[in-house]
Amino acid sequence: MSFYPIPAAITVPQGFRAAGVFCDIKRLGTGKGSDKGPKRDLCLIVSDLPAAVAGLFTTNKVCAAPVKVSISRANGDYAQAVVANSGNANACTGLIGLRDAKDMTELAGKELGLSSRSILVCSTGRIGVPMPMDNVRAGIQACAKMLDYSPEHGHEAAEAILTSDTHAKEVAVELKLGKHKIRIAGICKGAGMIQPGMSCNAKRPAAIPLHATMLAFLTSDAAIEPRALKDALNEAVAHSFNRITVDGDMSTNDSVIILANGMARNPIITKSSRLMGNRLLFQKALNYVTLELAKMIVRDGEGVSRFVTVRVSGARSFADADAAARAVANSALVKTSWCGGDPNWGRILDALGYSNSHIVEEKIDVAYSKPGSTRMLFAVKKGQPTRTSFRTLCSLVAEKEFDLHINLNLGTSEAVIYTCDLTEAYVDFNKGDVSNPSALGG
Amino acid sequence: MSFYPIPAAITVPQGFRAAGVFCDIKRLGTGKGSDKGPKRDLCLIVSDLPAAVAGLFTTNKVCAAPVKVSISRANGDYAQAVVANSGNANACTGLIGLRDAKDMTELAGKELGLSSRSILVCSTGRIGVPMPMDNVRAGIQACAKMLDYSPEHGHEAAEAILTSDTHAKEVAVELKLGKHKIRIAGICKGAGMIQPGMSCNAKRPAAIPLHATMLAFLTSDAAIEPRALKDALNEAVAHSFNRITVDGDMSTNDSVIILANGMARNPIITKSSRLMGNRLLFQKALNYVTLELAKMIVRDGEGVSRFVTVRVSGARSFADADAAARAVANSALVKTSWCGGDPNWGRILDALGYSNSHIVEEKIDVAYSKPGSTRMLFAVKKGQPTRTSFRTLCSLVAEKEFDLHINLNLGTSEAVIYTCDLTEAYVDFNKGDVSNPSALGG
Repeated sequence: MSFYPIPAAITVPQGFRAAGVFCDIKRLGTGKGSDKGPKRDLCLIVSDLPAAVAGLFTTNKVCAAPVKVSISRANGDYAQAVVANSGNANACTGLIGLRDAKDMTELAGKELGLSSRSILVCSTGRIGVPMPMDNVRAGIQACAKMLDYSPEHGHEAAEAILTSDTHAKEVAVELKLGKHKIRIAGICKGAGMIQPGMSCNAKRPAAIPLHATMLAFLTSDAAIEPRALKDALNEAVAHSFNRITVDGDMSTNDSVIILANGMARNPIITKSSRLMGNRLLFQKALNYVTLELAKMIVRDGEGVSRFVTVRVSGARSFADADAAARAVANSALVKTSWCGGDPNWGRILDALGYSNSHIVEEKIDVAYSKPGSTRMLFAVKKGQPTRTSFRTLCSLVAEKEFDLHINLNLGTSEAVIYTCDLTEAYVDFNKGDVSNPSALGG
Repeated sequence: MSFYPIPAAITVPQGFRAAGVFCDIKRLGTGKGSDKGPKRDLCLIVSDLPAAVAGLFTTNKVCAAPVKVSISRANGDYAQAVVANSGNANACTGLIGLRDAKDMTELAGKELGLSSRSILVCSTGRIGVPMPMDNVRAGIQACAKMLDYSPEHGHEAAEAILTSDTHAKEVAVELKLGKHKIRIAGICKGAGMIQPGMSCNAKRPAAIPLHATMLAFLTSDAAIEPRALKDALNEAVAHSFNRITVDGDMSTNDSVIILANGMARNPIITKSSRLMGNRLLFQKALNYVTLELAKMIVRDGEGVSRFVTVRVSGARSFADADAAARAVANSALVKTSWCGGDPNWGRILDALGYSNSHIVEEKIDVAYSKPGSTRMLFAVKKGQPTRTSFRTLCSLVAEKEFDLHINLNLGTSEAVIYTCDLTEAYVDFNKGDVSNPSALGG
């Protein structure tokens, strides 16, 4: 590999400071954030210099106020900071919500001595509740005072964006572009309402996904032209965050933002660079960071007990391969069968049959393998069960992670979706507790 | 009403005999069908005279062998019997399965003294397992000997098609066409893998549903032209079976079949009859029977604790209204919120936002009501929460049945979907028991 993982924190690229604080955005009463003391719920990520910016956002037609504010800023060339909170999604909050989202960037700008136009904003949490702006104001002021370059403060930021996640998600890599050492770091959150379908212009990408709130923030000290950065992020997200589904629900708040401040002083990567040399090295490293983060979201999905990579090949087109993979990955019956360790290929064929993909029953092959292995155990060949014993298939599906291979044998297109099982724990978690409305997720 | 419900059995229209037997199609060993003794798993429904026939079948591209056999026979004008079994879906069974399905009609024809071409066949149960034809043969022979006109034998047939259903589903009505007393009866099964999207020609109907095995058999002694009967069944299914979803999974085996033998001797209803008078009366009665049966399937869905009628109005087109209603009805997060009695409108707006329907967030109204009531409690007006208290909304959603009203306020089109919550019991039921493969559903 041309890059290598390093101890992760959003602050490891040069010139990035971060911090995360608790300001009680859920208004639970100070100190009651969790059993272990208050959980951080607001963070700032700040570049010392103006940074090239790119962002991709949910294509849900009901989109949150911070998404509306951040889309236009991410479509500009440069930005310098992100302010983000958990506990309140600022979605379905109308004009007041829009004003609050803008005010969050104003407040952060004032504390940081930056124009609010150079600041992006993201929120995740409960839908339809006004932002508690007094708490947010105090949080931004406190957070700005805490900012520094340490990994510990990076971890705090990663913690502050979590909702139903069980742990923080951080990845970082280092690579060499000629003599110059470049770093890329990322943090994200996910857990439920997860089938992102993000785009930079509210038009759905070719592969249309369905939902969850996921937020991801990426930093790099690479020198890269804004237009080249936007292309690179599109490419990376198309193969990572837009390839995952936990429950098929696309959120109102999905956002991925990258800031690249050029402090590594490498020869600038431009859009006209051919996709080789430095541009290719940067892309590969970025792809790695986003894919690792995306898989972390699925593995830490609400109630998840199994991580499954669905690989469809032999489709007539990418759209067909994608539709087939998503039908299987989002089928309630397929997902529950995995929960029980049941390699139920009948339900898989059923889901392929009602997908919008071209399929011919008599041509379909279905196999399971260990993750990444090419040693496949075929359950179905040409639409018919093989002689592989049920016990043998069960032994693979009993594992916490496995791959499902579906060959439609109709063409040469492929698609992969990273998904999980559907468990009683997911239902239990999401059915909420109506006796405690503040605990209900968005 | 121009018709009235009567004690139900598939045999109540004149000239229909039925029976149901246990022939151990799951090969559990005789007598072990259930704790309460063997559960019937094969039935025959036979008309004394050739009957006008109509049928609608799954549009899943992976469709079971009996569906392939029955489609062509239902597209003919007349038929005289149906043979059906539970325990084995005869799906993904290749050429052997196709031969077995035809053989089932041959065997029934031989016992009944009818051409196999006048007999339709349906199966439901596990996918990918060859039909145990020795058992089936013995079952058909035994069943043919049991046939009679009694309601008890009708009930046996209704019992024989059940899989994970907790009870038999039977409806019958009587109506007067002039001096002539007409009866329409129906039985069905459902429970899981339920979002039928049935058509008479394997092309998807305008409203595309997604999945479950549901079977429904209807009998009538009305005199009606085959082409008029086909139109009537299309109309009835469009507003009933094709409007339900339990888990969004469209089955390989969904089938609805009607036989109308004319023994009531009413003046024949023809396709050229205007849709008034007798033709309209028949249609209304048939609509009632199919809708009652369809609702029974949802109420008895796997693990269901709440029955929800999703009514979308104000859409630009029927396709939009349908897409919006299905997105909400199939959202894992919306369904789990109902399971907890949580009127979570945020998840509802989220699902509307990622549906393929045209929506404008700022125009959407969302309300709950008691079933069929016009007294609505608004949760959302113009995309924003109302002042209706959370407690008040909870009190409605705590009920076993309620209506959800969504007005998109963009047009005049409407759609309704009958659905249910997603519970831990659904997951528990469907995750199967890999230590007992014979217990695993299709």
